[in-house]
Amino acid sequence: MFTDEYFMKMALNEAEIALEKDEVPIGCVVVSNNRVIARAHNLTETLNDVTAHAEMQAITSAANFLGGKYLKNCTLYVTLEPCVMCSGALSWAQISKVVIGARDEQRGFINKNLSLHPKTEIVTGIMEYECSLIVKEFFKSKR
Amino acid sequence: MFTDEYFMKMALNEAEIALEKDEVPIGCVVVSNNRVIARAHNLTETLNDVTAHAEMQAITSAANFLGGKYLKNCTLYVTLEPCVMCSGALSWAQISKVVIGARDEQRGFINKNLSLHPKTEIVTGIMEYECSLIVKEFFKSKR
Repeated sequence: MFTDEYFMKMALNEAEIALEKDEVPIGCVVVSNNRVIARAHNLTETLNDVTAHAEMQAITSAANFLGGKYLKNCTLYVTLEPCVMCSGALSWAQISKVVIGARDEQRGFINKNLSLHPKTEIVTGIMEYECSLIVKEFFKSKR
Repeated sequence: MFTDEYFMKMALNEAEIALEKDEVPIGCVVVSNNRVIARAHNLTETLNDVTAHAEMQAITSAANFLGGKYLKNCTLYVTLEPCVMCSGALSWAQISKVVIGARDEQRGFINKNLSLHPKTEIVTGIMEYECSLIVKEFFKSKR
């Protein structure tokens, strides 16, 4: 039951909430022991704040929940590959695992030759089509 | 009067406030038209939040002050070279200028071959000795 697709669907649901707010539709959840401990979506326009990416909010929220700043037994499910800022935050958080929906060749951290914490496992391509489509359709509607 | 040293002293004052709270002593200010519009210091321990670097808080705070998410006519004065996370945030903010006290060869963005926004001017080495000393003394006291 608790597959990567199961949790990525929840992250995608967050992206859909962002879309309803006319935000770039990116969402994520943080999972610990098969329990969702944080969920967030991009709010940069609503909050007028470039730092309000889904991942940044989820990291803060998960740390609040856990009562400690490290996310050592946690997995982040995120619909789009994290940017430089978010990859830096995930490194500091020493998160155990990051599961990515769609790649972001231009803005994502992987093509910048950045790595996360040495102990962080990275999985890509979970529900890639759906996670990519929602962002592509959003930008198409803006042109 | 409004030299780089003038504003870096204010950033260093923020670092000293962090030190009093037993935080890694890093501070910054954001300046627009020779006016300080945001000031912040590292609060990662106090807030139990890896994202609570001085720069991240100052970016959010300056955007709140300006009522817009871009810091296009702003200069950040920061006592220590920004990390990967903070450099990503500064890129998104399209800040005009970043003035750095001490370099951070290990954790700083420059040696990771990351760049800020193409229009962002970067100045290093302002009050380097003082900005470096406060961090070195902090870590020495922790060993």
